[in-house]
Amino acid sequence: METGRYIAVLVILSLVPKSLSKSIIQISSENHRSAASDPISDGRRSRNAEDLYCDSWRFSVEINDAGTWRQIPARCQEYVKEYMTGDRFWSDSDVAAGCALAFANTVEVTGNGKDAWIFDIDETLLSNVPYYAAHGFGSETFDENSFDEWVDTAEAPALPASLKLYKEVQQMGFTIFLLTGRDESQRNATVKNLLFAGYRNWERLILRGPSDLGKPAIVYKSEKRKELEDEGYTIHGSSGDQWSDLSGFSTASRSFKLPNPMYYIA
Amino acid sequence: METGRYIAVLVILSLVPKSLSKSIIQISSENHRSAASDPISDGRRSRNAEDLYCDSWRFSVEINDAGTWRQIPARCQEYVKEYMTGDRFWSDSDVAAGCALAFANTVEVTGNGKDAWIFDIDETLLSNVPYYAAHGFGSETFDENSFDEWVDTAEAPALPASLKLYKEVQQMGFTIFLLTGRDESQRNATVKNLLFAGYRNWERLILRGPSDLGKPAIVYKSEKRKELEDEGYTIHGSSGDQWSDLSGFSTASRSFKLPNPMYYIA
Repeated sequence: METGRYIAVLVILSLVPKSLSKSIIQISSENHRSAASDPISDGRRSRNAEDLYCDSWRFSVEINDAGTWRQIPARCQEYVKEYMTGDRFWSDSDVAAGCALAFANTVEVTGNGKDAWIFDIDETLLSNVPYYAAHGFGSETFDENSFDEWVDTAEAPALPASLKLYKEVQQMGFTIFLLTGRDESQRNATVKNLLFAGYRNWERLILRGPSDLGKPAIVYKSEKRKELEDEGYTIHGSSGDQWSDLSGFSTASRSFKLPNPMYYIA
Repeated sequence: METGRYIAVLVILSLVPKSLSKSIIQISSENHRSAASDPISDGRRSRNAEDLYCDSWRFSVEINDAGTWRQIPARCQEYVKEYMTGDRFWSDSDVAAGCALAFANTVEVTGNGKDAWIFDIDETLLSNVPYYAAHGFGSETFDENSFDEWVDTAEAPALPASLKLYKEVQQMGFTIFLLTGRDESQRNATVKNLLFAGYRNWERLILRGPSDLGKPAIVYKSEKRKELEDEGYTIHGSSGDQWSDLSGFSTASRSFKLPNPMYYIA
Protein backbone atom coordinates (compact mmCIF):
# COMPACT_ATOMS: atom_id res chain seq x y z
CA MET A 1 0.00 0.00 0.00
CA GLU A 2 2.69 2.46 0.99
CA THR A 3 4.57 1.92 -2.27
CA GLY A 4 1.33 2.32 -4.19
CA ARG A 5 0.73 5.66 -2.52
CA TYR A 6 4.18 6.94 -3.34
CA ILE A 7 3.73 5.91 -6.96
CA ALA A 8 0.37 7.70 -7.05
CA VAL A 9 2.00 10.86 -5.72
CA LEU A 10 4.67 10.64 -8.40
CA VAL A 11 2.09 10.11 -11.14
CA ILE A 12 0.15 13.12 -9.87
CA LEU A 13 3.31 15.21 -9.80
CA SER A 14 3.97 14.30 -13.43
CA LEU A 15 0.56 15.72 -14.39
CA VAL A 16 1.28 19.20 -13.10
CA PRO A 17 1.94 21.57 -15.99
CA LYS A 18 5.39 23.08 -16.03
CA SER A 19 4.57 26.33 -17.76
CA LEU A 20 3.41 28.24 -14.71
CA SER A 21 4.53 31.42 -13.09
CA LYS A 22 7.00 31.17 -10.29
CA SER A 23 4.38 31.99 -7.71
CA ILE A 24 2.09 29.15 -8.69
CA ILE A 25 4.96 26.72 -9.01
CA GLN A 26 5.92 27.69 -5.52
CA ILE A 27 2.47 27.02 -4.10
CA SER A 28 2.15 23.73 -5.94
CA SER A 29 5.55 22.38 -5.12
CA GLU A 30 5.16 23.20 -1.43
CA ASN A 31 1.94 21.28 -1.53
CA HIS A 32 3.54 18.32 -3.23
CA ARG A 33 6.57 18.28 -1.00
CA SER A 34 4.41 17.92 2.07
CA ALA A 35 2.39 15.23 0.32
CA ALA A 36 5.54 13.29 -0.57
CA SER A 37 6.89 13.50 2.94
CA ASP A 38 3.72 12.15 4.56
CA PRO A 39 1.53 10.55 1.94
CA ILE A 40 -0.82 8.87 4.40
CA SER A 41 -1.58 12.05 6.30
CA ASP A 42 -4.28 13.15 3.91
CA GLY A 43 -6.76 11.00 2.06
CA ARG A 44 -7.01 13.44 -0.82
CA ARG A 45 -3.33 13.38 -1.58
CA SER A 46 -3.23 9.63 -1.81
CA ARG A 47 -5.96 9.47 -4.45
CA ASN A 48 -4.59 7.81 -7.50
CA ALA A 49 -4.40 9.06 -11.05
CA GLU A 50 -7.54 7.15 -12.06
CA ASP A 51 -9.58 8.88 -9.40
CA LEU A 52 -8.16 12.24 -10.41
CA TYR A 53 -9.11 11.63 -14.04
CA CYS A 54 -12.57 10.25 -13.19
CA ASP A 55 -13.29 13.16 -10.84
CA SER A 56 -12.50 15.53 -13.72
CA TRP A 57 -14.50 13.46 -16.19
CA ARG A 58 -17.46 13.66 -13.80
CA PHE A 59 -16.98 17.44 -13.52
CA SER A 60 -17.07 17.71 -17.32
CA VAL A 61 -20.27 15.69 -17.71
CA GLU A 62 -22.13 17.24 -14.78
CA ILE A 63 -21.28 20.74 -15.95
CA ASN A 64 -22.19 19.79 -19.53
CA ASP A 65 -18.78 20.64 -20.99
CA ALA A 66 -18.72 17.10 -22.33
CA GLY A 67 -21.96 17.56 -24.28
CA THR A 68 -23.38 14.29 -25.60
CA TRP A 69 -21.73 11.14 -24.25
CA ARG A 70 -22.79 7.53 -24.59
CA GLN A 71 -21.11 5.50 -21.89
CA ILE A 72 -18.92 6.15 -18.90
CA PRO A 73 -15.23 5.59 -19.66
CA ALA A 74 -14.24 1.97 -18.94
CA ARG A 75 -11.55 3.22 -16.55
CA CYS A 76 -14.18 5.05 -14.47
CA GLN A 77 -16.54 2.13 -13.96
CA GLU A 78 -15.35 1.38 -10.43
CA TYR A 79 -15.23 5.10 -9.64
CA VAL A 80 -18.86 5.63 -10.69
CA LYS A 81 -19.95 2.58 -8.72
CA GLU A 82 -18.25 3.94 -5.59
CA TYR A 83 -19.65 7.41 -6.20
CA MET A 84 -23.21 6.17 -6.67
CA THR A 85 -23.24 3.67 -3.80
CA GLY A 86 -21.18 5.63 -1.28
CA ASP A 87 -21.67 8.90 0.54
CA ARG A 88 -20.84 11.32 -2.24
CA PHE A 89 -23.97 10.84 -4.32
CA TRP A 90 -26.20 11.32 -1.27
CA SER A 91 -24.23 14.33 -0.18
CA ASP A 92 -24.36 15.96 -3.63
CA SER A 93 -28.09 15.23 -3.88
CA ASP A 94 -28.71 16.72 -0.44
CA VAL A 95 -26.86 19.92 -1.25
CA ALA A 96 -28.69 20.26 -4.59
CA ALA A 97 -32.05 19.84 -2.82
CA GLY A 98 -30.91 22.36 -0.21
CA CYS A 99 -30.24 24.92 -2.95
CA ALA A 100 -33.71 24.30 -4.38
CA LEU A 101 -35.35 24.68 -0.99
CA ALA A 102 -33.45 27.91 -0.28
CA PHE A 103 -34.76 29.33 -3.55
CA ALA A 104 -38.31 28.06 -2.96
CA ASN A 105 -38.30 29.93 0.32
CA THR A 106 -37.71 33.21 -1.54
CA VAL A 107 -40.75 32.78 -3.81
CA GLU A 108 -43.95 34.55 -2.85
CA VAL A 109 -46.50 31.86 -3.50
CA THR A 110 -49.66 33.59 -4.64
CA GLY A 111 -52.20 31.03 -3.43
CA ASN A 112 -54.01 30.89 -6.77
CA GLY A 113 -52.49 27.48 -7.56
CA LYS A 114 -50.53 28.82 -10.49
CA ASP A 115 -47.08 28.68 -8.88
CA ALA A 116 -45.52 25.59 -10.40
CA TRP A 117 -42.58 23.38 -9.59
CA ILE A 118 -41.57 20.67 -12.06
CA PHE A 119 -39.87 17.42 -11.15
CA ASP A 120 -38.34 14.93 -13.53
CA ILE A 121 -38.80 11.30 -12.46
CA ASP A 122 -35.88 8.96 -13.25
CA GLU A 123 -32.80 9.79 -11.15
CA THR A 124 -34.76 12.74 -9.74
CA LEU A 125 -37.80 11.53 -7.80
CA LEU A 126 -37.00 7.85 -8.27
CA SER A 127 -33.59 6.22 -8.15
CA ASN A 128 -32.78 3.48 -10.63
CA VAL A 129 -29.55 2.61 -8.88
CA PRO A 130 -30.77 -0.93 -8.15
CA TYR A 131 -31.19 -1.43 -11.91
CA TYR A 132 -27.90 0.20 -12.86
CA ALA A 133 -26.05 -1.68 -10.13
CA ALA A 134 -26.93 -4.84 -12.07
CA HIS A 135 -25.91 -3.20 -15.38
CA GLY A 136 -22.46 -1.78 -14.80
CA PHE A 137 -23.51 1.65 -13.50
CA GLY A 138 -23.72 3.08 -17.02
CA SER A 139 -20.72 1.22 -18.43
CA GLU A 140 -22.94 -1.14 -20.43
CA THR A 141 -24.85 -0.11 -23.56
CA PHE A 142 -28.36 0.94 -22.54
CA ASP A 143 -30.84 -1.91 -23.04
CA GLU A 144 -34.33 -0.51 -23.39
CA ASN A 145 -36.05 -3.88 -22.95
CA SER A 146 -34.45 -4.75 -19.63
CA PHE A 147 -34.94 -1.19 -18.38
CA ASP A 148 -38.64 -1.31 -19.31
CA GLU A 149 -38.94 -4.56 -17.37
CA TRP A 150 -37.41 -2.78 -14.37
CA VAL A 151 -39.89 0.10 -14.77
CA ASP A 152 -42.73 -2.42 -14.77
CA THR A 153 -41.65 -3.76 -11.38
CA ALA A 154 -42.51 -0.31 -9.96
CA GLU A 155 -39.97 -0.84 -7.20
CA ALA A 156 -37.57 2.04 -7.75
CA PRO A 157 -36.94 3.72 -4.39
CA ALA A 158 -37.32 7.43 -3.81
CA LEU A 159 -34.23 9.58 -3.96
CA PRO A 160 -34.50 10.70 -0.32
CA ALA A 161 -33.31 14.29 -0.89
CA SER A 162 -35.94 14.72 -3.61
CA LEU A 163 -38.76 13.17 -1.57
CA LYS A 164 -37.98 15.63 1.20
CA LEU A 165 -37.88 18.58 -1.21
CA TYR A 166 -41.10 17.41 -2.90
CA LYS A 167 -42.94 17.41 0.40
CA GLU A 168 -41.49 20.77 1.38
CA VAL A 169 -42.40 22.63 -1.82
CA GLN A 170 -45.82 21.00 -1.75
CA GLN A 171 -46.29 22.24 1.79
CA MET A 172 -45.32 25.74 0.65
CA GLY A 173 -48.18 25.73 -1.85
CA PHE A 174 -46.40 25.05 -5.12
CA THR A 175 -48.39 23.10 -7.69
CA ILE A 176 -46.36 20.07 -8.67
CA PHE A 177 -45.96 18.76 -12.19
CA LEU A 178 -44.10 15.60 -13.01
CA LEU A 179 -42.51 15.70 -16.46
CA THR A 180 -40.86 12.50 -17.61
CA GLY A 181 -39.39 11.02 -20.76
CA ARG A 182 -41.23 7.79 -20.01
CA ASP A 183 -44.12 7.18 -22.39
CA GLU A 184 -47.85 6.84 -21.85
CA SER A 185 -47.70 3.04 -21.93
CA GLN A 186 -45.75 3.29 -18.67
CA ARG A 187 -48.29 5.48 -16.87
CA ASN A 188 -49.74 2.81 -14.60
CA ALA A 189 -46.38 1.39 -13.54
CA THR A 190 -45.06 4.91 -12.99
CA VAL A 191 -47.98 5.96 -10.79
CA LYS A 192 -47.71 2.73 -8.83
CA ASN A 193 -43.98 3.28 -8.33
CA LEU A 194 -44.39 6.92 -7.29
CA LEU A 195 -46.97 5.92 -4.66
CA PHE A 196 -44.75 3.03 -3.50
CA ALA A 197 -41.90 5.52 -3.06
CA GLY A 198 -44.01 7.96 -1.03
CA TYR A 199 -45.04 10.65 -3.52
CA ARG A 200 -48.58 11.99 -3.29
CA ASN A 201 -50.90 14.65 -4.72
CA TRP A 202 -49.07 15.84 -7.80
CA GLU A 203 -51.20 18.03 -10.06
CA ARG A 204 -50.35 16.22 -13.30
CA LEU A 205 -48.06 13.47 -14.52
CA ILE A 206 -46.90 14.29 -18.05
CA LEU A 207 -45.54 11.42 -20.15
CA ARG A 208 -44.63 11.25 -23.83
CA GLY A 209 -47.74 10.87 -25.95
CA PRO A 210 -47.77 9.48 -29.49
CA SER A 211 -46.81 12.87 -30.99
CA ASP A 212 -43.83 13.20 -28.61
CA LEU A 213 -42.13 9.93 -29.48
CA GLY A 214 -38.76 10.43 -31.14
CA LYS A 215 -38.40 14.06 -30.07
CA PRO A 216 -35.20 14.94 -28.23
CA ALA A 217 -35.98 15.26 -24.52
CA ILE A 218 -34.94 18.92 -24.52
CA VAL A 219 -37.57 19.74 -27.18
CA TYR A 220 -40.34 17.58 -25.71
CA LYS A 221 -39.81 18.97 -22.22
CA SER A 222 -39.58 22.58 -23.41
CA GLU A 223 -42.84 22.18 -25.35
CA LYS A 224 -44.59 20.78 -22.29
CA ARG A 225 -43.32 23.64 -20.12
CA LYS A 226 -44.56 26.07 -22.75
CA GLU A 227 -48.02 24.48 -22.57
CA LEU A 228 -48.02 24.97 -18.79
CA GLU A 229 -47.08 28.63 -19.25
CA ASP A 230 -49.88 28.99 -21.79
CA GLU A 231 -52.26 27.60 -19.15
CA GLY A 232 -51.19 30.44 -16.87
CA TYR A 233 -48.69 28.67 -14.65
CA THR A 234 -45.51 30.39 -13.53
CA ILE A 235 -42.74 27.82 -13.48
CA HIS A 236 -40.59 28.90 -10.56
CA GLY A 237 -38.43 25.84 -10.07
CA SER A 238 -37.44 22.73 -11.94
CA SER A 239 -35.51 19.74 -10.65
CA GLY A 240 -33.85 17.20 -12.91
CA ASP A 241 -30.72 15.13 -13.33
CA GLN A 242 -30.25 15.95 -17.03
CA TRP A 243 -29.53 19.27 -18.68
CA SER A 244 -32.29 18.33 -21.14
CA ASP A 245 -34.71 18.48 -18.19
CA LEU A 246 -33.71 22.05 -17.45
CA SER A 247 -32.62 23.79 -20.67
CA GLY A 248 -34.28 24.77 -23.95
CA PHE A 249 -37.17 27.25 -23.84
CA SER A 250 -39.85 28.15 -21.27
CA THR A 251 -37.31 27.25 -18.63
CA ALA A 252 -38.03 27.68 -14.93
CA SER A 253 -36.89 30.79 -13.07
CA ARG A 254 -34.35 28.55 -11.38
CA SER A 255 -33.26 25.06 -12.36
CA PHE A 256 -31.63 22.51 -10.09
CA LYS A 257 -29.39 19.84 -11.54
CA LEU A 258 -29.10 16.64 -9.59
CA PRO A 259 -26.01 14.47 -9.93
CA ASN A 260 -26.01 11.65 -12.47
CA PRO A 261 -22.70 10.36 -13.83
CA MET A 262 -24.32 7.15 -15.16
CA TYR A 263 -25.98 8.28 -18.38
CA TYR A 264 -26.78 11.23 -20.62
CA ILE A 265 -30.04 12.10 -22.36
CA ALA A 266 -29.98 14.73 -25.13
CA MET B 1 -5.00 9.74 12.92
CA GLU B 2 -6.52 6.27 13.06
CA THR B 3 -9.10 7.34 15.61
CA GLY B 4 -9.86 10.40 13.52
CA ARG B 5 -10.50 8.22 10.51
CA TYR B 6 -12.89 5.95 12.41
CA ILE B 7 -14.76 9.00 13.66
CA ALA B 8 -14.97 10.34 10.09
CA VAL B 9 -16.39 7.03 8.88
CA LEU B 10 -18.98 7.11 11.64
CA VAL B 11 -19.94 10.69 10.82
CA ILE B 12 -20.29 9.76 7.16
CA LEU B 13 -22.43 6.74 8.08
CA SER B 14 -24.70 9.01 10.07
CA LEU B 15 -25.29 11.11 6.94
CA VAL B 16 -26.70 8.24 4.91
CA PRO B 17 -30.48 8.55 4.68
CA LYS B 18 -32.38 5.70 6.23
CA SER B 19 -35.46 5.85 4.03
CA LEU B 20 -34.10 3.78 1.18
CA SER B 21 -35.25 0.59 -0.47
CA LYS B 22 -33.70 -2.63 0.69
CA SER B 23 -31.60 -2.93 -2.42
CA ILE B 24 -29.90 0.44 -1.99
CA ILE B 25 -29.44 -0.09 1.72
CA GLN B 26 -27.73 -3.33 0.87
CA ILE B 27 -25.31 -1.72 -1.57
CA SER B 28 -24.53 1.15 0.79
CA SER B 29 -24.09 -0.89 3.91
CA GLU B 30 -21.78 -3.33 2.16
CA ASN B 31 -19.74 -0.37 1.10
CA HIS B 32 -19.66 1.04 4.60
CA ARG B 33 -18.89 -2.24 6.25
CA SER B 34 -15.79 -2.67 4.18
CA ALA B 35 -14.83 0.93 4.86
CA ALA B 36 -15.21 0.45 8.58
CA SER B 37 -13.22 -2.75 8.61
CA ASP B 38 -10.26 -1.26 6.76
CA PRO B 39 -10.52 2.51 6.75
CA ILE B 40 -6.99 3.10 5.48
CA SER B 41 -7.32 0.81 2.49
CA ASP B 42 -8.92 3.47 0.33
CA GLY B 43 -8.17 7.17 0.34
CA ARG B 44 -11.68 8.07 -0.74
CA ARG B 45 -13.30 6.32 2.17
CA SER B 46 -11.12 8.06 4.70
CA ARG B 47 -12.14 11.54 3.49
CA ASN B 48 -13.65 13.37 6.35
CA ALA B 49 -17.06 14.93 6.65
CA GLU B 50 -15.70 18.41 5.86
CA ASP B 51 -14.30 17.22 2.55
CA LEU B 52 -17.54 15.47 1.74
CA TYR B 53 -19.51 18.64 2.43
CA CYS B 54 -17.08 20.90 0.57
CA ASP B 55 -17.01 18.58 -2.44
CA SER B 56 -20.80 18.83 -2.58
CA TRP B 57 -20.72 22.57 -2.06
CA ARG B 58 -18.29 22.84 -4.99
CA PHE B 59 -20.61 20.67 -7.09
CA SER B 60 -23.51 23.01 -6.29
CA VAL B 61 -21.63 26.18 -7.24
CA GLU B 62 -19.97 24.80 -10.37
CA ILE B 63 -23.25 23.44 -11.65
CA ASN B 64 -24.99 26.70 -10.71
CA ASP B 65 -27.54 25.07 -8.39
CA ALA B 66 -26.30 27.49 -5.75
CA GLY B 67 -27.08 30.56 -7.87
CA THR B 68 -25.59 33.76 -6.46
CA TRP B 69 -23.09 33.28 -3.65
CA ARG B 70 -20.76 35.78 -2.04
CA GLN B 71 -18.00 33.92 -0.26
CA ILE B 72 -16.86 30.35 0.11
CA PRO B 73 -18.09 28.77 3.35
CA ALA B 74 -15.56 29.29 6.16
CA ARG B 75 -15.36 25.53 6.70
CA CYS B 76 -14.28 25.06 3.06
CA GLN B 77 -11.41 27.54 3.04
CA GLU B 78 -8.71 24.88 3.41
CA TYR B 79 -10.51 22.63 0.93
CA VAL B 80 -10.61 25.36 -1.74
CA LYS B 81 -6.94 26.14 -1.13
CA GLU B 82 -6.02 22.51 -1.63
CA TYR B 83 -8.26 22.21 -4.68
CA MET B 84 -6.81 25.33 -6.34
CA THR B 85 -3.17 24.64 -5.56
CA GLY B 86 -3.13 20.89 -5.99
CA ASP B 87 -3.74 18.58 -8.93
CA ARG B 88 -7.50 18.72 -9.09
CA PHE B 89 -7.85 22.23 -10.49
CA TRP B 90 -5.32 21.49 -13.23
CA SER B 91 -6.97 18.19 -14.02
CA ASP B 92 -10.46 19.73 -14.20
CA SER B 93 -9.14 22.57 -16.38
CA ASP B 94 -7.42 20.10 -18.71
CA VAL B 95 -10.55 18.00 -19.16
CA ALA B 96 -12.65 21.13 -19.79
CA ALA B 97 -10.18 22.31 -22.45
CA GLY B 98 -10.19 18.82 -23.95
CA CYS B 99 -13.99 18.97 -24.31
CA ALA B 100 -13.67 22.35 -26.05
CA LEU B 101 -10.99 21.06 -28.41
CA ALA B 102 -13.04 17.97 -29.27
CA PHE B 103 -15.95 20.22 -30.22
CA ALA B 104 -13.72 22.66 -32.15
CA ASN B 105 -12.53 19.73 -34.23
CA THR B 106 -16.11 19.07 -35.37
CA VAL B 107 -16.64 22.62 -36.69
CA GLU B 108 -16.17 23.22 -40.39
CA VAL B 109 -14.23 26.46 -40.34
CA THR B 110 -15.26 28.42 -43.43
CA GLY B 111 -12.06 30.36 -44.01
CA ASN B 112 -13.90 33.70 -44.28
CA GLY B 113 -12.74 34.78 -40.83
CA LYS B 114 -16.26 34.79 -39.45
CA ASP B 115 -15.96 31.67 -37.29
CA ALA B 116 -15.53 33.03 -33.81
CA TRP B 117 -14.39 31.66 -30.47
CA ILE B 118 -14.75 33.80 -27.36
CA PHE B 119 -12.52 33.62 -24.33
CA ASP B 120 -13.09 35.28 -21.00
CA ILE B 121 -9.90 36.52 -19.31
CA ASP B 122 -9.81 36.23 -15.49
CA GLU B 123 -9.65 32.58 -14.35
CA THR B 124 -9.96 31.59 -18.01
CA LEU B 125 -6.95 32.82 -19.99
CA LEU B 126 -5.19 34.25 -16.95
CA SER B 127 -5.01 32.76 -13.50
CA ASN B 128 -5.32 35.07 -10.50
CA VAL B 129 -4.40 32.30 -8.08
CA PRO B 130 -1.29 34.20 -6.92
CA TYR B 131 -3.59 37.06 -5.89
CA TYR B 132 -6.23 34.88 -4.28
CA ALA B 133 -3.58 32.82 -2.49
CA ALA B 134 -2.76 36.02 -0.60
CA HIS B 135 -6.45 36.74 0.02
CA GLY B 136 -7.89 33.55 1.45
CA PHE B 137 -8.84 31.87 -1.85
CA GLY B 138 -12.22 33.57 -1.94
CA SER B 139 -12.90 33.42 1.79
CA GLU B 140 -12.25 37.14 2.22
CA THR B 141 -14.62 39.86 1.03
CA PHE B 142 -13.56 40.96 -2.45
CA ASP B 143 -11.45 44.10 -2.29
CA GLU B 144 -11.61 45.91 -5.62
CA ASN B 145 -8.68 48.21 -4.84
CA SER B 146 -6.17 45.51 -4.06
CA PHE B 147 -7.39 43.43 -7.01
CA ASP B 148 -6.94 46.40 -9.34
CA GLU B 149 -3.40 46.80 -8.04
CA TRP B 150 -2.78 43.16 -8.86
CA VAL B 151 -4.19 43.67 -12.38
CA ASP B 152 -1.81 46.60 -12.85
CA THR B 153 1.20 44.38 -12.15
CA ALA B 154 0.29 42.47 -15.35
CA GLU B 155 1.89 39.35 -13.92
CA ALA B 156 -0.99 36.90 -13.85
CA PRO B 157 0.21 33.61 -15.36
CA ALA B 158 -1.60 31.83 -18.15
CA LEU B 159 -3.95 29.03 -17.21
CA PRO B 160 -1.94 26.38 -19.11
CA ALA B 161 -4.94 24.37 -20.37
CA SER B 162 -6.44 27.57 -21.81
CA LEU B 163 -3.21 28.74 -23.44
CA LYS B 164 -2.95 25.39 -25.20
CA LEU B 165 -6.60 25.54 -26.31
CA TYR B 166 -6.18 29.15 -27.46
CA LYS B 167 -3.28 28.22 -29.70
CA GLU B 168 -5.11 25.18 -31.03
CA VAL B 169 -8.35 26.94 -32.00
CA GLN B 170 -6.30 29.80 -33.47
CA GLN B 171 -4.39 27.28 -35.55
CA MET B 172 -7.70 25.83 -36.77
CA GLY B 173 -8.70 29.23 -38.15
CA PHE B 174 -11.13 30.49 -35.53
CA THR B 175 -11.22 34.25 -35.04
CA ILE B 176 -10.57 34.94 -31.39
CA PHE B 177 -12.41 37.50 -29.30
CA LEU B 178 -11.53 38.27 -25.72
CA LEU B 179 -14.53 39.41 -23.70
CA THR B 180 -13.81 40.54 -20.17
CA GLY B 181 -15.57 42.26 -17.30
CA ARG B 182 -12.47 44.42 -16.79
CA ASP B 183 -13.00 48.00 -17.84
CA GLU B 184 -11.36 50.17 -20.48
CA SER B 185 -9.07 51.83 -17.95
CA GLN B 186 -7.40 48.42 -17.58
CA ARG B 187 -6.77 47.89 -21.30
CA ASN B 188 -3.03 48.56 -21.27
CA ALA B 189 -2.32 46.41 -18.24
CA THR B 190 -4.50 43.66 -19.67
CA VAL B 191 -2.76 43.64 -23.04
CA LYS B 192 0.63 43.66 -21.33
CA ASN B 193 -0.41 40.75 -19.13
CA LEU B 194 -1.83 38.72 -22.00
CA LEU B 195 1.41 39.13 -23.96
CA PHE B 196 3.45 38.29 -20.84
CA ALA B 197 1.42 35.10 -20.46
CA GLY B 198 1.94 34.06 -24.08
CA TYR B 199 -1.27 35.08 -25.86
CA ARG B 200 -0.97 36.55 -29.35
CA ASN B 201 -3.03 37.73 -32.32
CA TRP B 202 -6.51 38.01 -30.91
CA GLU B 203 -8.94 39.80 -33.20
CA ARG B 204 -10.38 42.14 -30.57
CA LEU B 205 -10.18 42.68 -26.84
CA ILE B 206 -13.57 43.82 -25.54
CA LEU B 207 -13.65 45.58 -22.17
CA ARG B 208 -16.46 47.41 -20.39
CA GLY B 209 -16.89 50.88 -21.82
CA PRO B 210 -18.58 53.79 -20.01
CA SER B 211 -22.05 52.60 -21.05
CA ASP B 212 -21.38 49.07 -19.75
CA LEU B 213 -20.43 50.00 -16.22
CA GLY B 214 -22.86 48.70 -13.64
CA LYS B 215 -24.49 46.17 -15.96
CA PRO B 216 -24.62 42.61 -14.72
CA ALA B 217 -21.92 40.59 -16.49
CA ILE B 218 -24.51 38.29 -18.06
CA VAL B 219 -26.22 41.28 -19.74
CA TYR B 220 -23.01 43.05 -20.79
CA LYS B 221 -21.51 39.88 -22.24
CA SER B 222 -24.72 38.87 -24.03
CA GLU B 223 -24.95 42.35 -25.61
CA LYS B 224 -21.37 42.14 -26.83
CA ARG B 225 -21.97 38.68 -28.31
CA LYS B 226 -25.06 40.03 -30.03
CA GLU B 227 -22.94 42.81 -31.57
CA LEU B 228 -20.53 40.20 -32.92
CA GLU B 229 -23.43 38.26 -34.43
CA ASP B 230 -24.71 41.47 -35.99
CA GLU B 231 -21.27 41.93 -37.57
CA GLY B 232 -21.70 38.53 -39.21
CA TYR B 233 -19.70 36.36 -36.88
CA THR B 234 -20.84 32.86 -35.97
CA ILE B 235 -19.95 32.22 -32.34
CA HIS B 236 -19.13 28.53 -32.27
CA GLY B 237 -17.43 28.24 -28.91
CA SER B 238 -17.10 30.19 -25.71
CA SER B 239 -14.82 29.49 -22.75
CA GLY B 240 -15.31 31.04 -19.33
CA ASP B 241 -15.19 30.25 -15.65
CA GLN B 242 -18.51 31.95 -14.81
CA TRP B 243 -22.02 31.02 -15.93
CA SER B 244 -22.42 34.75 -16.67
CA ASP B 245 -19.71 34.34 -19.32
CA LEU B 246 -21.71 31.64 -21.06
CA SER B 247 -25.44 32.21 -20.50
CA GLY B 248 -27.97 34.89 -21.43
CA PHE B 249 -28.64 35.51 -25.14
CA SER B 250 -26.61 35.20 -28.34
CA THR B 251 -24.85 32.32 -26.66
CA ALA B 252 -22.25 30.24 -28.45
CA SER B 253 -23.16 26.95 -30.09
CA ARG B 254 -21.24 25.28 -27.30
CA SER B 255 -20.03 26.78 -24.05
CA PHE B 256 -17.26 25.47 -21.86
CA LYS B 257 -17.24 26.16 -18.15
CA LEU B 258 -13.88 26.18 -16.44
CA PRO B 259 -13.63 25.43 -12.73
CA ASN B 260 -13.69 28.29 -10.25
CA PRO B 261 -14.78 27.66 -6.67
CA MET B 262 -13.26 30.96 -5.46
CA TYR B 263 -15.85 33.53 -6.50
CA TYR B 264 -19.12 34.12 -8.33
CA ILE B 265 -20.02 36.89 -10.77
CA ALA B 266 -23.67 37.42 -11.65
